[in-house]
Amino acid sequence: MSWIDDPAFGRDDPFGPQTLPYGVIGEGIAVRVGDSALPLRPIAESFGALADLVRADTLDPLLRAGRPAWSALRARLVEVVTAASAPRGARLVGLEGAVLPFTVADYVDFYSSRHHAENVGRIFRPDDPPLLPNWTHLPVGYHGRAGTVVVSGTPVVRPHGQRRGGSKGPVFGPSQRLDVEAEVGFVCGGPVASRLSTSRAVEHVFGVVLVNDWSARDIQGWEYQPLGPFLGKSFATSVSAWITPLEAFAVARVSPPPLPNPVLDYLVEERPHGLDISLEVEWNGVVVSRPPFREMSWTFAQQLAHLSVNGATVRPGDLIASGTVSGPAREERGSFLELSWGGREPVTVGDQERTFLEDGDSVRITATAPGEDGSLVGLAEVEGTVLPADGS
Amino acid sequence: MSWIDDPAFGRDDPFGPQTLPYGVIGEGIAVRVGDSALPLRPIAESFGALADLVRADTLDPLLRAGRPAWSALRARLVEVVTAASAPRGARLVGLEGAVLPFTVADYVDFYSSRHHAENVGRIFRPDDPPLLPNWTHLPVGYHGRAGTVVVSGTPVVRPHGQRRGGSKGPVFGPSQRLDVEAEVGFVCGGPVASRLSTSRAVEHVFGVVLVNDWSARDIQGWEYQPLGPFLGKSFATSVSAWITPLEAFAVARVSPPPLPNPVLDYLVEERPHGLDISLEVEWNGVVVSRPPFREMSWTFAQQLAHLSVNGATVRPGDLIASGTVSGPAREERGSFLELSWGGREPVTVGDQERTFLEDGDSVRITATAPGEDGSLVGLAEVEGTVLPADGS
Repeated sequence: MSWIDDPAFGRDDPFGPQTLPYGVIGEGIAVRVGDSALPLRPIAESFGALADLVRADTLDPLLRAGRPAWSALRARLVEVVTAASAPRGARLVGLEGAVLPFTVADYVDFYSSRHHAENVGRIFRPDDPPLLPNWTHLPVGYHGRAGTVVVSGTPVVRPHGQRRGGSKGPVFGPSQRLDVEAEVGFVCGGPVASRLSTSRAVEHVFGVVLVNDWSARDIQGWEYQPLGPFLGKSFATSVSAWITPLEAFAVARVSPPPLPNPVLDYLVEERPHGLDISLEVEWNGVVVSRPPFREMSWTFAQQLAHLSVNGATVRPGDLIASGTVSGPAREERGSFLELSWGGREPVTVGDQERTFLEDGDSVRITATAPGEDGSLVGLAEVEGTVLPADGS
Repeated sequence: MSWIDDPAFGRDDPFGPQTLPYGVIGEGIAVRVGDSALPLRPIAESFGALADLVRADTLDPLLRAGRPAWSALRARLVEVVTAASAPRGARLVGLEGAVLPFTVADYVDFYSSRHHAENVGRIFRPDDPPLLPNWTHLPVGYHGRAGTVVVSGTPVVRPHGQRRGGSKGPVFGPSQRLDVEAEVGFVCGGPVASRLSTSRAVEHVFGVVLVNDWSARDIQGWEYQPLGPFLGKSFATSVSAWITPLEAFAVARVSPPPLPNPVLDYLVEERPHGLDISLEVEWNGVVVSRPPFREMSWTFAQQLAHLSVNGATVRPGDLIASGTVSGPAREERGSFLELSWGGREPVTVGDQERTFLEDGDSVRITATAPGEDGSLVGLAEVEGTVLPADGS
């Protein structure tokens, strides 16, 4: 019987000792135990040579420290939280006030769900093949704005922007097609490195978060040719406040669905790094979708091998998002663009109908993955509420 | 007669007292005076309340300090370098060993030369109108990789990647169409802000650099649909080691060429911020192009107003690049893609012919702008030499 006095902390709960995600609250680095946080600074001495890493103000030094430190810290943490008595100075606090726990270096957003890419193709290019020719040969991706990555709970102000108009040119105003993208994100660490193999890539991933890549579809549709999404995405990207260590996902490893063609050598994985993570998307408290991450065609190891094959470095703090997670079924789609089929088929949200987000709407994404001995590994929620556009 | 003992330091020289760019060498922050560097740490006491800013290891604290500090420091520097006698402890050192002087936050690359955009359109889509419909209504841009921005002089390793193949799918190997893009970059600072007006935007620009946005055209051509350039650009982006303060460009201000349509209110400039900067591109020591920055259709003030109009924040360290600078004439094109018209019209480089870059080639971009009293304001060179691909 652990000393942790939180009823949601146990092997039957997603934030039990099999999970132990890291975050930062007012008192520095903390670990989530059930519905509580355990600040590590007051018990830093329990971690011996790792004490300085847990005394830091952010997770940045820990991200830099690399896999051996991550494994050692996690092993010691399991001992601490499962012990019968508390280490001296230990106390639990609430989860409130968690801040973005690391400095985002580069943010890359991929596009690795075949179902999502095909749905988008069918909605916007109904007369063409739904997938572009490169999609099955490489994990398509692009750089997003690192400076507007925000922590779960941060309100999202409806963005202004240009959208396609009539013959008089574009129209300016608050986005009328504000959307979400439910994604899984990978937080990188370890030494700066490039040309990572798929097997080495894993050593550069510290942990896993949920991502809501808020998207203004009308702004995006007008701006994105030929250089890709820019203002349609850059106003906000929300991530979980707590990072679940990659090591917690050992049991969740699966093979992704096969591609129709062989991939080039640098993208081959001997034992693939697909993950059986089950997402849930709540719109104003109503579950509207259950996107299955196991359906993603490209794994994070392939994404890192690809993005660094040209010599680009991977740095601590790099955030790699999967792209919208959509499964084959309607109720598995990870964006409202897809759920409402381009706005043409409204979604029932409780006693209301929706296509895109209205002011005051909130979206919450949660997820779990299978852990050891039948347990569930939790990913911390990512939540946000839409505020009216400035000046509205 | 100034105490600065450098023959290239005078009003007749581009790095005279009218310019005074900042950089970082082994001894911390320095100012370029002619072909020498003046380290500021040994004479920090000369700067009174600004002493801590010039004692820093990088320009990051100065970038955060904002326009009032920038103006005060520059005014004092002019006094120091034009004085008859040296401040105690002052000494000049060489320009060698300059490092990237600031932490790049987000890197945004625009596409603001109409001539470049039209050339690219004509080369790749000869049967369609050369400009896409959005181009004359907004400054098209995208996020690049901040982590691979490197200082002038850093060798550039030819990147590996996928390129379009035949019916068997893509081919992998070293890029065969390695190119440059001669650009002008704006380094941001001051308080974190969003929804900048074109007039407020200027207060968030610390200074100006030259940028070589190295581009692997074959990688880019295969990957870029539908999310834009990624690995074709992310292997390296070179910038000047010395940042010329924006204040040095007061005389260089010009109106950009008019667009064929009115722009939306948030992009209107009462007094436009075009800059009359003349670039020169040397390929293996031979000048192959003289791109005129005054021909750019969108100014940095419009670019900043646009990128922040959706609520995205501008942070100290953000780097805003103009996009390839190309003028209307052949010998004013800022990329080899354009100079060689897609590789079909080789360029004479001394006694050799070139289309794209060969291993061992070096490219050097320099620039000047008109300063006060007939002087020239210099932008520090950006230079790089191509190394063979890893494993070649």
